[in-house]
Amino acid sequence: MRKIGKQEIEDIAVGAALLGTGGGGDPYIGKLMALQAIEEFGPVTVLDPEEVPDDALLVPSSMMGAPTVMLEKVPSGEEAIVAFKQLEEYLGEKIYATFPIEAGGLNSMLPFVLAARLGLPVVDADGMGRAFPELQMVTFYLDGISATPAVIADEKGNTALLSTIDNVWTERIARAATIQMGGSVMNAMYSMRGKDIKASGIPNILQLEEEIGKTIRLAKENNANAIEEVLKTVGGFELFRGKVTDIDRKTETGFARGVATFEGMDKYKDETLKLRFQNEHLIAQTEKQLLCVTPDLIAVLDAETGLPITTEGIRYGARCVVIGIPCHPKWRTEKGIETVGPRYFGYDVDYVPVEELVKGAAK
Amino acid sequence: MRKIGKQEIEDIAVGAALLGTGGGGDPYIGKLMALQAIEEFGPVTVLDPEEVPDDALLVPSSMMGAPTVMLEKVPSGEEAIVAFKQLEEYLGEKIYATFPIEAGGLNSMLPFVLAARLGLPVVDADGMGRAFPELQMVTFYLDGISATPAVIADEKGNTALLSTIDNVWTERIARAATIQMGGSVMNAMYSMRGKDIKASGIPNILQLEEEIGKTIRLAKENNANAIEEVLKTVGGFELFRGKVTDIDRKTETGFARGVATFEGMDKYKDETLKLRFQNEHLIAQTEKQLLCVTPDLIAVLDAETGLPITTEGIRYGARCVVIGIPCHPKWRTEKGIETVGPRYFGYDVDYVPVEELVKGAAK
Repeated sequence: MRKIGKQEIEDIAVGAALLGTGGGGDPYIGKLMALQAIEEFGPVTVLDPEEVPDDALLVPSSMMGAPTVMLEKVPSGEEAIVAFKQLEEYLGEKIYATFPIEAGGLNSMLPFVLAARLGLPVVDADGMGRAFPELQMVTFYLDGISATPAVIADEKGNTALLSTIDNVWTERIARAATIQMGGSVMNAMYSMRGKDIKASGIPNILQLEEEIGKTIRLAKENNANAIEEVLKTVGGFELFRGKVTDIDRKTETGFARGVATFEGMDKYKDETLKLRFQNEHLIAQTEKQLLCVTPDLIAVLDAETGLPITTEGIRYGARCVVIGIPCHPKWRTEKGIETVGPRYFGYDVDYVPVEELVKGAAK
Repeated sequence: MRKIGKQEIEDIAVGAALLGTGGGGDPYIGKLMALQAIEEFGPVTVLDPEEVPDDALLVPSSMMGAPTVMLEKVPSGEEAIVAFKQLEEYLGEKIYATFPIEAGGLNSMLPFVLAARLGLPVVDADGMGRAFPELQMVTFYLDGISATPAVIADEKGNTALLSTIDNVWTERIARAATIQMGGSVMNAMYSMRGKDIKASGIPNILQLEEEIGKTIRLAKENNANAIEEVLKTVGGFELFRGKVTDIDRKTETGFARGVATFEGMDKYKDETLKLRFQNEHLIAQTEKQLLCVTPDLIAVLDAETGLPITTEGIRYGARCVVIGIPCHPKWRTEKGIETVGPRYFGYDVDYVPVEELVKGAAK
C-alpha cells in the first residue's frame, strides 16, 4: 500500500502514454484530470494486487472511443461516476476498488480520478500491460471473465447497461452505441473479484509506468540519454530513428486509423519506416523487413526528450525514435495471438516476437 | 373485456397489416406466432383502456428493425420475455398488461404472443394508430412519456438496458445496437401507467383492425367488392389503381427503404404512381400531383382480394389499389407533423390532409 500524489501522477502519465503505444488517450488531459481530483480530494491509495481480499468487488475504470474524439470532448469524470453507480446498483454490492483497464495516457489516469472522487483505492494491475483498441482485448477475456454486466455512459446523461453472450458481443454493441453517443463514453465493465485480478491481471503496471516516467524525467535533469535509459527500464529495442514525412489518419467506425511514414536518419538513412495504427500502433516495417508487430509494443518517442508521442501527436517533420518492447507472456499464447495478433487486425503476417525480429534486422 | 381466439387473431392480423401501411412486420409470421401461443396457452383477454386501473403498470410489446430482416430471422418470442422480465426486475414491479406499440402485421400480434405466454391481458390501444419507422414516433412522445428505461434483446441472448435523456436518443442508440444485434430486436420500453394509455394512447385499435379483417374476409365469402367495403370501414379514399412496374428497395442503416412504381389501369390509365417508403409507405404521388403523405396512412391492397401488401410483398406485375386513410388527429398537431410529417423524412412538401388532396385530384 502506498499513496499516490502529484509527482507520481506526473510520472505515471508519461510511462502510461509510452506503454499505451500511441493509444489509450491523451496523457495531458488524463494528467490534468487526475491532478485536479487529487488536489480536491487528496492523495489516492494504491494497493498491490496481493493486498486485495479474494472476494472484494473490483471494477476497472476505462473510456472507450476514438482518441481523436476524446481530445475534443474532454470528460468531466461525472459520467464515469454515473456508470460506476449504476453498475453498483445493478450488482447490489459496493465496489471495493478500481484499477486501470489498460496502459494509456488517459485510461491509466481515470482510475485516480474515480478513486479520488469516490474514496476508493486503486489496485496496481491492469488487463493489457499496454493499450489495445477493442473491449475483448484484455487478459480477462483470455481467462474467461465476462465483460458484462457492463454500463456505458456519455456526458449528456445517456447510459446503456449491456448483458451479452460473450465479450466480442459487448465490443460490437458498445462500439455501435459509442459512435451514436458522440464517439466516446465512460465504461463500468469487467467487474471481478480480488482473486480474479491476482490470477488474470498484469500486476504492478503502475509501478512500471512510474519508473518509466521517472527515468525520462531524471534523464532530462541529468542531461542523460533518455532513450537509452528508457530501453533499459522497459527491456526494449530501438527499431528506427527518423523524421515524419507523411501522416495519414482518419476517424472511422469509432477508431482512429492510419499510417505514419518516417524517413530514416543516422544509421537508418535511406530507409523508410511505415507505422500502421488503429488507435494503437500495430505494425512497424521498412521496405526490407518487419520490425515489430502486435501484440508486442511499438512506441514512438521524441528523439530529443524521449517523451512518448500518441498517434494524434505525430506531426510532420517530428524527429522520432521508434522502439519495440516484448509484450506480456499472456499475449504470446495461442488465444492471445488469435485475439490481438496481426491477422486479427487484417495484416497478412505471422506474429514473430520482437526480440527475434530485431536479431534478424541486426544481421 | 373480451376473449381473443383464433378467428379474431386471423382478422386482426389482416387489419393490422393494412393499418401498418406496408410496415409493422410480416402479417403471416405474426399470425403464426400468435396462433401458436393461443393454441398452447389458451385465449387472451383484451381490456378496453377504460377497464385498466389508473396506476397499473403497462409495457407495450414491440420489435424494432428492418422488416426485410425479420422475414429471415423469425423471432421465437423468447427474447421478448427476456426483455419484459429484465424491465420488470429493473422497475421492481409486476407488469399488469401489455399492448401493441403500433399497428402492423407483426407488432400487433406480438402482444398476444407475450400475453398468452406470460398470462397477461392486452389493452386495446396503441401508440400510433398505424406504423412508423422510429421509436420516438408515438403519441406517447407527443405527450412527454419517456421511452426509457428501455430493454432491447436479441435472439442470441444479448440485452441492453437504456436510459436516455430523451426518446430521440433512445432511437439513436437502440437503432445502432439493433444493427449490431443482427438487424432486429425485441423491445420492452415506454412503460407507463393506466392513466397514461387512457390519455395518450389511440384507443380501440384492435377492434378496428378486427373489423377491417372481418370486412375483407366477409367480402370474399359474399363475393362483395372488398376494396369498397374496406374504404367504408376505415373512412378512406381510393388513390390509384395500377400494376407494379418497378420496385427498388434496399436495407440500409437498419431500415428497408425504397420506391415502388405503379402504371395506372382503369380510369388511371396513362398515369404513373410513385410510392416511397422507409419501412412504411410515406408518400404517394403521380407526375401530376401529390395524393397522400405521412402521417396520413397509405395502404397497398391486392386489387382482387383487398388484402394488404407490405413493402416486402410488393412484386413486379402485381395489380394493386392504393388507398389513403386520414391519420389520428394527434398526428395533425404541430408537434405531430414535426415528428412524422414529410419534412422529417426529407421530402420537400408540406403536409396536406388526404381528404383535401383527394378533393383536388377529383377536380
